[in-house]
Amino acid sequence: MTTPSRIRCPKLSKRVMSADEAATLIPSGVNVGMSGFTGAGYPKAVPVALADHIRRQRADGENYRVSVWTGASTAPELDGALAEVDGIEMRLPYQSDPVCRQKINDGQMSYMDIHLSHVAQHVWSGFFGKLDIAVIEVAGITEDGRLIPSSSIGNNKTWIDQADRVILEVNYGQSAGLEGMHDVYYGTALPPRRKPIPITHPDERFGEKYLLCPPEKVIAVVETDAPDRNSKFADPDDNSRRIADHLLKFFQQEVEQKRLPKNLLPLQSGVGNIANAVMAGLNEGPFDNLSAYTEVLQDGMLAMLKSGKLATASATAFSLSPEANQDLADNIEFYKDRIVLRTQEISNHPEVIRRLGVIAMNGMIEADIYGNVNSTHVMGTRIMNGIGGSGDFARNGYLSVFMTPSTARNGAISTIVPMVSHVDHTEHDVQIVVTEQGLADLRGLPPRRRALEIIEKCAHPDFRPRLKDYFERACASGRGMHTPHLLEEALSWHCHFEQNGQM
Amino acid sequence: MTTPSRIRCPKLSKRVMSADEAATLIPSGVNVGMSGFTGAGYPKAVPVALADHIRRQRADGENYRVSVWTGASTAPELDGALAEVDGIEMRLPYQSDPVCRQKINDGQMSYMDIHLSHVAQHVWSGFFGKLDIAVIEVAGITEDGRLIPSSSIGNNKTWIDQADRVILEVNYGQSAGLEGMHDVYYGTALPPRRKPIPITHPDERFGEKYLLCPPEKVIAVVETDAPDRNSKFADPDDNSRRIADHLLKFFQQEVEQKRLPKNLLPLQSGVGNIANAVMAGLNEGPFDNLSAYTEVLQDGMLAMLKSGKLATASATAFSLSPEANQDLADNIEFYKDRIVLRTQEISNHPEVIRRLGVIAMNGMIEADIYGNVNSTHVMGTRIMNGIGGSGDFARNGYLSVFMTPSTARNGAISTIVPMVSHVDHTEHDVQIVVTEQGLADLRGLPPRRRALEIIEKCAHPDFRPRLKDYFERACASGRGMHTPHLLEEALSWHCHFEQNGQM
Repeated sequence: MTTPSRIRCPKLSKRVMSADEAATLIPSGVNVGMSGFTGAGYPKAVPVALADHIRRQRADGENYRVSVWTGASTAPELDGALAEVDGIEMRLPYQSDPVCRQKINDGQMSYMDIHLSHVAQHVWSGFFGKLDIAVIEVAGITEDGRLIPSSSIGNNKTWIDQADRVILEVNYGQSAGLEGMHDVYYGTALPPRRKPIPITHPDERFGEKYLLCPPEKVIAVVETDAPDRNSKFADPDDNSRRIADHLLKFFQQEVEQKRLPKNLLPLQSGVGNIANAVMAGLNEGPFDNLSAYTEVLQDGMLAMLKSGKLATASATAFSLSPEANQDLADNIEFYKDRIVLRTQEISNHPEVIRRLGVIAMNGMIEADIYGNVNSTHVMGTRIMNGIGGSGDFARNGYLSVFMTPSTARNGAISTIVPMVSHVDHTEHDVQIVVTEQGLADLRGLPPRRRALEIIEKCAHPDFRPRLKDYFERACASGRGMHTPHLLEEALSWHCHFEQNGQM
Repeated sequence: MTTPSRIRCPKLSKRVMSADEAATLIPSGVNVGMSGFTGAGYPKAVPVALADHIRRQRADGENYRVSVWTGASTAPELDGALAEVDGIEMRLPYQSDPVCRQKINDGQMSYMDIHLSHVAQHVWSGFFGKLDIAVIEVAGITEDGRLIPSSSIGNNKTWIDQADRVILEVNYGQSAGLEGMHDVYYGTALPPRRKPIPITHPDERFGEKYLLCPPEKVIAVVETDAPDRNSKFADPDDNSRRIADHLLKFFQQEVEQKRLPKNLLPLQSGVGNIANAVMAGLNEGPFDNLSAYTEVLQDGMLAMLKSGKLATASATAFSLSPEANQDLADNIEFYKDRIVLRTQEISNHPEVIRRLGVIAMNGMIEADIYGNVNSTHVMGTRIMNGIGGSGDFARNGYLSVFMTPSTARNGAISTIVPMVSHVDHTEHDVQIVVTEQGLADLRGLPPRRRALEIIEKCAHPDFRPRLKDYFERACASGRGMHTPHLLEEALSWHCHFEQNGQM
């Protein structure tokens, strides 16, 4: 371990032990709240040690499993390792790990896919049962035992508050300069005692810089020195760039029409290549003095902070490439003036998103001709990742944008379909749909006009005639003309794909 | 007309004219914002006169149509009359009129079905184009030109603010005692200038008692003396009573488990017989000092206010039987101490609903085995009414409950189906499903366990074996096991019904 010690609190430095020792403190059958959000700030050592422990116990014939609650997605060292040994009874509220996903879709693991803004309050209310143990990565511990949060906050405040026992991982690999970047709000409450969340601009601070944890709850402190997942996203491809172009043109039009201020409104951006392409586009675009109120800061937002295009950014986590992560560490004071990391219940709070008027920009799996969006299920049955915060932002934002290339699997799949095979965002919550083909503006349009707009603007030309044909036959069917459908074949595109590998 | 005049403002008393004269001031092609919410406070004379005017113009060969925006549903004298003459180009955000519904489902009229909390802000933002004229029922006009709101507020503040021209209907049939019951909040703004909505309890007042309207905007004042729709709901039937019983037992259990306070949390209740049955149940139940933060006050809530079970109620509209309406008028001072009528953007505000921790109780058309809810479409294509405020309350409330009898059309339809034919509330937003058969508590359950819970607790025994069979075959299909489905037959129950009149 590097010196000086990051465990400045004498009381807690006495609880230092190995990850293997700490893992044995987690009994089978418990609910464990772990830190971690989009591959940042998750515990690196204890989950792996727990997986080993479970494997050994399993060999001895014990059916050892725990339920794992997090902020959002983590990494192979957590979700992957525990899923690999079938150690997870129930997983919530979001995951994106390949092994985890496979286990869920094979029926070997249970998964609850929840709005990220709902998680904390449902746990406070006892809806999911008692949280037994918290395993939280921190960047350090102060003299008086306060915890310096790591590269994400997520649900950590909630896990620490709710759990009887807390295991801390102090990660020396996290920048010591993170201290002071966070804003942990301790003013939340259960109804009927709730007060307004006191924020009117994305950069406002109204909480603590530290996580507070009674030292007597801490049953183990484990020292680590490993980087976050820090996966590099591919450079924007042509489709992503085209999607970004359509969206930027739309923003310009909205500013011209005075439906958006010149510096837009606080941006929320989902994770991935399209999101990064939109950020790259904005970084070269005509808008200045932008702000972000979002869940996750990716490379693109850091670049925009650096260029000055983005004045301020609020999130609950980073999700950076190794290069961007290095840049963050090298320029931590610069970024600390411009970034606030908050608890997940505040970064995704409906009240705040609505008040700030966030522009919600999220990816999707597919949309149907009426603008219902599927964000989670492949062919209606297999979970991809989860809804994450997209529902928090889409429902409550000023504008709700959903984006995807118009085809997938080398053209075998149309992402615009007659009827989505699963609905995460209803027609009532989807205003703008963008593919590389174009942008459909659904505001003010009744269903049949939405269908024409989406087919015309967003569908791939290879699928457009069949979509039109479906729509026209549905209109001619003599069934209801509000939302015309041929229920017999509404999901047939998905069935074809399952049978023939081609929609 | 009765005396004394309710038009106490000399300036505005000069604008009095007949409804026929006023109707001619509404040109073809305009967007008209009309008052009205669940059959209360809608203009009674001008829309009928406009329908006559349109019929005459039509006879002269002119294609005369207007778009009609309201708070929510109105009555035959508004929606019915205008739909009858094909006078409505586009209708939003909610309707429940039989003629209207028929025209929409025949494809002769366009309808946008919108979250009620979205309407005002989307209009402020210009998403639906310019509002040209407002037609607003009021209970009177003060000396200085302030408007005494009627039996609903809905979007009236927005319509008056946004329209260039305002037509007022002063209804002498509304209780003069309504003066002072309303709370019209003028502190809303477009982002980035929004402030917290200053409310922490359902009974707080933070606005004006009157609607404010520059007198120069008022182009006509029409005097009327007609009652609201005031339709009587049927007495609770056995199914409604059983649903109410299940829900009350659930509330008791939640109080025992300390997941709800003894006086519950503010109640939101949809409109209809089941809602009234739930209120009747609560009125005889063990809970005291209840509160309501809802859209609509029905007979049941008035009875609870009278009995003292309900301490306070906030809404944007009444929807009463003639008897309850008489009781309201006779005891207006008693009720005025206990009722606040607000603008729709506040009664349905996500921020407020979340903060207060509202218990959302809404009816539905059907739910599927995974807990997705269809609130709007019959057999996937025909609109019934609209989503109304159910999405505002279900997404942001403390608990989200959906209720329906388990069958419809004398048993020909199962309201629990393999897959809903339209989704208004996703699996992420539905926690409790209740039918007369029982109550499914979906909190903390992953999809397959949700399916078992819903089939077992909520489905009618006549359909339960087929639902189980579908679910088991879906699980055995080798497709994804997160949300098992047989897409080929997921909607077949609806198709059977369309073909054979029987699911």
